[in-house]
Amino acid sequence: MSRSDRCSLRERKVVLEEAGIKTLDPTKYPDGDIAMDAEKRMKTVYELADQMGLESRELLPYGHYMGKIDAAPVLNRLGKKPDGKYIDVTAITPTPLGEGKSTTTIGLVQGLGRRGKRCSAAIRQPSGGPTMGIKGSAAGGGRSQCIPLSQYSLGFTGDINAVQNAHNLAMVALTARMQHERNYSDEKLLAMSGMDRLNIDPTRVEMGWTMDYCCQALRNIIIGIDGGNGSRDGYMMRSRFDITVSSEVMAILAIAADLADLRARIGRIIVAFDKFGNPVTTSDLEVAGAMTAWLVEAVKPNLIQTLEGQPVLVHAGPFANIAIGQSSIIADRVALKLSDYHVTESGFGADVGYEKFWNLKCHYSGLAPDAAVVVATIRALKCHGGAPVPRPGKKLPDEYTRENVEWVEKGCANLLHHIGVVKKSGVSPVVCINAFVSDTKDEIRKVKELCEAAGARVALSRHWECGGEGALELADAVTDACEEKSRFTPLYSWDMSMRKRIETVAREIYGADGVDYSFEASSRLKQIENDPAFADFGLCMVKTHLSLSDNPSLKGVPKGWRLKVGDVLTYGGAGFIVPVAGSISLMPGTGSNPSYRRIDVDTATGRVKGLF
Amino acid sequence: MSRSDRCSLRERKVVLEEAGIKTLDPTKYPDGDIAMDAEKRMKTVYELADQMGLESRELLPYGHYMGKIDAAPVLNRLGKKPDGKYIDVTAITPTPLGEGKSTTTIGLVQGLGRRGKRCSAAIRQPSGGPTMGIKGSAAGGGRSQCIPLSQYSLGFTGDINAVQNAHNLAMVALTARMQHERNYSDEKLLAMSGMDRLNIDPTRVEMGWTMDYCCQALRNIIIGIDGGNGSRDGYMMRSRFDITVSSEVMAILAIAADLADLRARIGRIIVAFDKFGNPVTTSDLEVAGAMTAWLVEAVKPNLIQTLEGQPVLVHAGPFANIAIGQSSIIADRVALKLSDYHVTESGFGADVGYEKFWNLKCHYSGLAPDAAVVVATIRALKCHGGAPVPRPGKKLPDEYTRENVEWVEKGCANLLHHIGVVKKSGVSPVVCINAFVSDTKDEIRKVKELCEAAGARVALSRHWECGGEGALELADAVTDACEEKSRFTPLYSWDMSMRKRIETVAREIYGADGVDYSFEASSRLKQIENDPAFADFGLCMVKTHLSLSDNPSLKGVPKGWRLKVGDVLTYGGAGFIVPVAGSISLMPGTGSNPSYRRIDVDTATGRVKGLF
Repeated sequence: MSRSDRCSLRERKVVLEEAGIKTLDPTKYPDGDIAMDAEKRMKTVYELADQMGLESRELLPYGHYMGKIDAAPVLNRLGKKPDGKYIDVTAITPTPLGEGKSTTTIGLVQGLGRRGKRCSAAIRQPSGGPTMGIKGSAAGGGRSQCIPLSQYSLGFTGDINAVQNAHNLAMVALTARMQHERNYSDEKLLAMSGMDRLNIDPTRVEMGWTMDYCCQALRNIIIGIDGGNGSRDGYMMRSRFDITVSSEVMAILAIAADLADLRARIGRIIVAFDKFGNPVTTSDLEVAGAMTAWLVEAVKPNLIQTLEGQPVLVHAGPFANIAIGQSSIIADRVALKLSDYHVTESGFGADVGYEKFWNLKCHYSGLAPDAAVVVATIRALKCHGGAPVPRPGKKLPDEYTRENVEWVEKGCANLLHHIGVVKKSGVSPVVCINAFVSDTKDEIRKVKELCEAAGARVALSRHWECGGEGALELADAVTDACEEKSRFTPLYSWDMSMRKRIETVAREIYGADGVDYSFEASSRLKQIENDPAFADFGLCMVKTHLSLSDNPSLKGVPKGWRLKVGDVLTYGGAGFIVPVAGSISLMPGTGSNPSYRRIDVDTATGRVKGLF
Repeated sequence: MSRSDRCSLRERKVVLEEAGIKTLDPTKYPDGDIAMDAEKRMKTVYELADQMGLESRELLPYGHYMGKIDAAPVLNRLGKKPDGKYIDVTAITPTPLGEGKSTTTIGLVQGLGRRGKRCSAAIRQPSGGPTMGIKGSAAGGGRSQCIPLSQYSLGFTGDINAVQNAHNLAMVALTARMQHERNYSDEKLLAMSGMDRLNIDPTRVEMGWTMDYCCQALRNIIIGIDGGNGSRDGYMMRSRFDITVSSEVMAILAIAADLADLRARIGRIIVAFDKFGNPVTTSDLEVAGAMTAWLVEAVKPNLIQTLEGQPVLVHAGPFANIAIGQSSIIADRVALKLSDYHVTESGFGADVGYEKFWNLKCHYSGLAPDAAVVVATIRALKCHGGAPVPRPGKKLPDEYTRENVEWVEKGCANLLHHIGVVKKSGVSPVVCINAFVSDTKDEIRKVKELCEAAGARVALSRHWECGGEGALELADAVTDACEEKSRFTPLYSWDMSMRKRIETVAREIYGADGVDYSFEASSRLKQIENDPAFADFGLCMVKTHLSLSDNPSLKGVPKGWRLKVGDVLTYGGAGFIVPVAGSISLMPGTGSNPSYRRIDVDTATGRVKGLF
């Protein structure tokens, strides 16, 4: 383990220069500066694609440093080639600051690269909401980032906008249809446009609009108010905006096998129910084809690189608390054909993101992981052990810069719980202690001791500080774990009733004593269980990521609580039943000190400043 | 003129094959099929950029057939090179079907190309509203189109989405600020985030949100309704969505000189007024830098090609009725350095788009056109002469397929009015009769006779049917006109009061007897005229494009009417005062038979079907 012992600045400099990688010291420079400096020396996307073995027509460049991979011909060409090893990165229950899961994903790939492996990462495209609300990159940090950083964070190749356009087109179609059905007789409707009456129930419109910001002002709105055009200003009703990345269209992009599967799923999205209780879908609104037309490019995964030049695929949705929160199946499939080791990331803690990776994403993809990394920080362990919760944009409480082995030990209960979740899936967990300069030897020793006793591999990793060279211990532990035979098995059978599946997740993954349903949730579940149309639907929970429970303020491993399910959504296209637990909203809010205040553009160079 | 006489199918085939251009016959194939067929043989964007003399780092490819031009280095490199000839394409008052202005722009460039000229076009990016609402391409038609057609029409390189994101971020900042100012004391605000109270007047919020669809349901909405989170669900107030292309951000993109000018203008957008009547800007909300960050790529013009391989730059906003409706100054500036003839397009008729080209766009750019093309169709002339108004999606009335020289002659009054507008600007008009297969020789002879008598060059052009080969007469007339010395002069001095400028446009361009203001409009104008901050503001009228008057049902040259100005908007960033005439809305509606019903994707190839 000597190679991963904390290296002094001088030693580190030598190591990095020997490897031909020159990046700025993260203890002295912010993430944005490190990325901008490395971008001067980055590979073109053409070189990157060559290195991966892509043929030139399989890469669609977007500028000289980003591109899209036309996945269908690659999968055709390499269909018979065996897949590389498949590694998921998950984490303990994070603090509101995040525990460096993307950083570890990138760092691990950089470490595997140093060991001479053909490897790649898949991460999720960041949402404009957090980018504009909370300072910090969703592309890693320190010496483990992906570049080009600013373009990646702002619009990128347009996928989130395409999802938003597809989603909102369904709402345009719904609201126009409701207006026309109100204004015209059956005969007139038929004569004007050959349309039958859908009889949409205005009190049972399921879908809202989307916007990719944190915008509490649009959570609850009234639309269709007459502004002087009488019956031509829409149909007045309650409505809402959700953040785009929580859209069912985004979930579909994450789980679609290909464009044909995507098209079929888009057509099954339930927009509302009619006055007789039947679902009204995007196909009924005759808008599913046009929605798909917006997504033809979005279905192709995006390609950028790590600071050290390994390929990073970026595709589909963040937000594992309110959405599926997985990078796409298409991205993983392509990468597994092109790499010997492919590292993908599932959002937030193992209770939230890994549970969905395990029981939804892998169900649809048919893929099975060879290992799973559980990222932990001494910071989060202290928080679970009793230190005050740190907040973005506020000074880190002093408790986090002083040694406290007792808190760390107490907080390990949360980590051990997540290790247990991964083991329950039949996969070998590798705990990655994502090192901070403030961590002490005794704190780290305690974590290793407890995790090893629980049967997990443990690696201390300094990828933030030292890049791939700092992640060699982690890379070795992961390659080791991949040699073990995985006995990956689902948590529950899809033959089980939805209520039983919810109960299983609540008890076995969250540690709840049981589940309580609101009247609405309960009657909705009854309908679902009685309707054979929902028989093969999956379960996608909406729950806070800040606690194993449904109450974000409960840290550690909460005991003696029951999961409260207030609502149940039906994603007909994705094929998900979505129980909403606790008081979680699909539209986050913007606080009083948002990061957009500090963002600007250097107009001489076009560089974005203050983003990270 | 023999070469442009109607060529038989057989002759046409010979002509096209001789020139090495093979495109499908538009009398037999829809626009989408012609485009898709030509796309099999189109140049890569790399070849196109080479042909234009761009250096490789000046082109940013987006896939292999579209790209962005990094304008700043090109203008630096070629700053001293004299500009090519500058031609604007305008039209008579169109029918709701449009009269082929984009088709003529593309056709003219193809004709100039056949004559061996180095030439280019600049057109505007189509809005998702009409694309999803009304069948038909905004990229020309028949044998005069630009390609790749589907990608161009659906999201393209992301500019409209970037404009929407920038615009809506200002609304996120505004509504969050209003909520926080309501919820907290001055002391708390200052302590939490170092913010002073802006005291925004909720009854004087100027800006709405944007979405790039025709969505009447979002015209008038109430936001910020408490959904159970009490004071954390926003500030309840009336609000609205406008179509994105009408955004002031889009106007700024069209007129900005460069990124620095764009940044400065973005910071001057007036979002609301405070309780003392002072403007509250995006700079006051500390969001202007972040808005600009979304626009760093959007400021670079896009590059595609005609069916016959000439470069087409696409940049900024459509909708000259409710917005400036011009392709960007940056696109024209770059193209004038790279071409001997550059053809740009201003939206709708000369009363609407050309007036703004003349008195706004050229004021900001300092450029002067060498010629202006006025597009007319026998169809529109008949409509102005008394035939029933044709409607999109409905069968064309029989009147349009039968000869009626009298209606054509009567309708020419409208055409002569537009010729007069162009002449008033000091520029030589070239009338282009955009030929339809149903036009008769006598109808065409009458138009030529009347236009020539009014001192205009006239060309019959069959570019829709025959491509560039059909536009040679037009190309020759335009090159001729460009040799005349242009005496381009503004319609009014910017020293004149705003009221006087509005009166001048109403009388001299629209043919009104005068202007009547609503109480609100009048008091707003009084404020504006008394405030030196607005002294150097331009005038950007909002008026229907379907009539010279403010009433879309009045055809020909309406007499004995007064312009009704109901509202006056203030675009502090663009630097426009925007009087809204008649009952025109910034958010169009979706009808009962929208085109999205017929759009779908061929999932085997990724091709979009039914769009055109």
